[in-house]
Amino acid sequence: MPEDASVNLEELLKLHPADVADYLQRLPAENAQCILRQVPRPLAAQILTELEKERFRAFTASFSTQELVELFQELAPNAAADLAGELPPEKRRQILAALPAETSAPIKALLHYGEDTAGGIMSDRFIALRSDHTVQQSQEVLRTRAEQRPEDVSYLYVTDEAQRLVGVVSLRDLVFRRPERRIGDIMNRDVKSVRVDADQEEIARRFEHYHYLGLPVVDSENRLVGIVKASDALHVAQREATEDMQLMVGLSGEERALTPWQKSIGRRLPWLYINLATAFLAAAVVSLFESTIARWTVLAVFLPIVAGQGGNAGMQTLTIIIRDMALGELSPGDGWKALLKEATLGLVNGLAIGLAVGLAGYVWKGDWRLGAIAGLAMLLNQLAAALSGVLIPFGLQALKVDPALASSIFVTTVTDVAGFFFFLGLAWAAIRLFGI
Amino acid sequence: MPEDASVNLEELLKLHPADVADYLQRLPAENAQCILRQVPRPLAAQILTELEKERFRAFTASFSTQELVELFQELAPNAAADLAGELPPEKRRQILAALPAETSAPIKALLHYGEDTAGGIMSDRFIALRSDHTVQQSQEVLRTRAEQRPEDVSYLYVTDEAQRLVGVVSLRDLVFRRPERRIGDIMNRDVKSVRVDADQEEIARRFEHYHYLGLPVVDSENRLVGIVKASDALHVAQREATEDMQLMVGLSGEERALTPWQKSIGRRLPWLYINLATAFLAAAVVSLFESTIARWTVLAVFLPIVAGQGGNAGMQTLTIIIRDMALGELSPGDGWKALLKEATLGLVNGLAIGLAVGLAGYVWKGDWRLGAIAGLAMLLNQLAAALSGVLIPFGLQALKVDPALASSIFVTTVTDVAGFFFFLGLAWAAIRLFGI
Repeated sequence: MPEDASVNLEELLKLHPADVADYLQRLPAENAQCILRQVPRPLAAQILTELEKERFRAFTASFSTQELVELFQELAPNAAADLAGELPPEKRRQILAALPAETSAPIKALLHYGEDTAGGIMSDRFIALRSDHTVQQSQEVLRTRAEQRPEDVSYLYVTDEAQRLVGVVSLRDLVFRRPERRIGDIMNRDVKSVRVDADQEEIARRFEHYHYLGLPVVDSENRLVGIVKASDALHVAQREATEDMQLMVGLSGEERALTPWQKSIGRRLPWLYINLATAFLAAAVVSLFESTIARWTVLAVFLPIVAGQGGNAGMQTLTIIIRDMALGELSPGDGWKALLKEATLGLVNGLAIGLAVGLAGYVWKGDWRLGAIAGLAMLLNQLAAALSGVLIPFGLQALKVDPALASSIFVTTVTDVAGFFFFLGLAWAAIRLFGI
Repeated sequence: MPEDASVNLEELLKLHPADVADYLQRLPAENAQCILRQVPRPLAAQILTELEKERFRAFTASFSTQELVELFQELAPNAAADLAGELPPEKRRQILAALPAETSAPIKALLHYGEDTAGGIMSDRFIALRSDHTVQQSQEVLRTRAEQRPEDVSYLYVTDEAQRLVGVVSLRDLVFRRPERRIGDIMNRDVKSVRVDADQEEIARRFEHYHYLGLPVVDSENRLVGIVKASDALHVAQREATEDMQLMVGLSGEERALTPWQKSIGRRLPWLYINLATAFLAAAVVSLFESTIARWTVLAVFLPIVAGQGGNAGMQTLTIIIRDMALGELSPGDGWKALLKEATLGLVNGLAIGLAVGLAGYVWKGDWRLGAIAGLAMLLNQLAAALSGVLIPFGLQALKVDPALASSIFVTTVTDVAGFFFFLGLAWAAIRLFGI
């Protein structure tokens, strides 16, 4: 259908590269590659930067080194470095070797930084002013560098003769101050910065907390090496929030609704198997009490209620803790306060739910003893839910693992195991003591 | 301990208002109020804007109208409007009446917009240039308006004589173009904008998708009424992501780890009761098969495994769908593709898990029939998990409810009910057919 394709192409060219990327991601890789080869090279390069990582790899799998080299030459160094970081090492080496040295050098420098650090998300297209220059000299610099399309920011950072960050001036200041003033005299010396190896999540938090528009990035010698913009931080914040939600239930953190199922299964199934192993743990508890159930079958009816309530309450606690941890809102010592709060809530919720279940057990099955046992087990399990919802993410953090990682699987394991044990254990004791 | 308080105060004054707010939020309301009354008024006003909404209400409860009026006078209209929106209506009216007309008018105008709209998050401190002015005239405007501390943006929006948005110029352009050029000739006419009633989530998505630094806000006549900055969008994006995670498990969307438990319980307990009602639904299914369990007690042991696996798989699917919906990444028609993908995954996961459970059932309990029944029920329940994980959020959306709302409770209800029904139903049929 060459006609259809050409109609599409003409319309595609009118769209923002991010929208073209969205469109292409819904096509089979071959069709997307075909279209990418037809659009003008600068646009094609921009589209590549907007693709999901995994789609980028799929779409460029068939591209020759020469094709990729031509595309990479259209990109700013930070965009090129981001893409190069996604390529197989061998392909990356070939491309970097084939690029002219003045293009490959900044890309190589950026590739040096971890992709989750300030260095990985920063842009190196910034203009630094010299503190010993005058306003007029600085205006000249700005005028001549404007063609290099530096990032649009309203603040300009000032360095000394050793490229160390010493201050910041607003573009407005620079324009309206007298031309002979020295930058060092008009700049604001109270300039905030981040280290190039700072974690991107921490940076996103600082942007949100302090409402920064941009932050300069410095190396260990306080030399200015890049800038991070609010929009970069926005991207990080959104991705991280998404990741936590996914990690909690055993997903990769990068899956999308339309990720091919063959890709999804590799990450989902292992966690489902782990969940299965933990479910057998809960089943083993039930198995311990098989003879109790055989004697009093209605206990089996209440098992899903005990498990369901504990699981839901545990998820509530867990979600609160993970969120506050991710946004850096828990200071040292807050963990204990949170534990105390959740334990109190568990107790109060447990009393409210325990009473309701006890009453329901009596009304439904006409047995007050069943109700009393179920109600008490509920109360205890709400406490177990509260404690595990706090202690599991803190425990994962202490083990230097992401506190969100599969945490919902671990919490529901605790609430299942504890819930069944309390419920069936109490029933067993009641039978022994009162001979029900 | 007046000495302690004064030491704290001195140190507090050195901090960023956002950090002071963090510190105060950890204190009892009376202590926080006492400190707020001691710090200089401009700082106190800034601190108020950084507080969690619920803490802001608690801290200002004891403030007189006069005190609040004095604090509100220190704030930009958009910040003042945000705070006024949180106050009880009566107090808000008193404050607005007591403020000078030139201060209260813009606040009232902003209060007009819904707090979740562009109007609710925008700033009205912007400088609009006139398209019929020259570069020199515009520079004059900028110079004289600089004292009013407009928001720092690197783009300036251009309006015609009827205040309609017609273009955009960069600050850099404005500075370096010849003074006699008309703004209308140098501006970029392709300017993106949002309507003042646009939803804030949609705006955050557009910022993320198109990497905007700022967006002009227009009314129904295309008149420029404000600007939204990337940092505002960042705030919205983070809050929304948090909200979805919380809504899924029956939380308010605004709870924090240190929210007092008395506040938390009002939102958590009702959902726990709803979860309890759905748990009784699952229990009713088990109850239907009480005689089957009485005959073959080991079935009870496998109940938690069926429920746990289905619940986890359902949460995986649900998390993917909610995330893509929230970020606006699902186009019309994508729902069906997602359903097909999840059903395929459910089938494949179901086969893998069903086989494992079947085998485990055989090894553990030495009964291949139990294994076969459990395995088949697992397979069917994985399909139920996949379908409910997609259909429930889409269903909630069709009902014009937030698709995240308590969705995990609904999905686990389906996986519990369906899982028990498949498992116990198959066991019942096996007993009837083969007389186990």
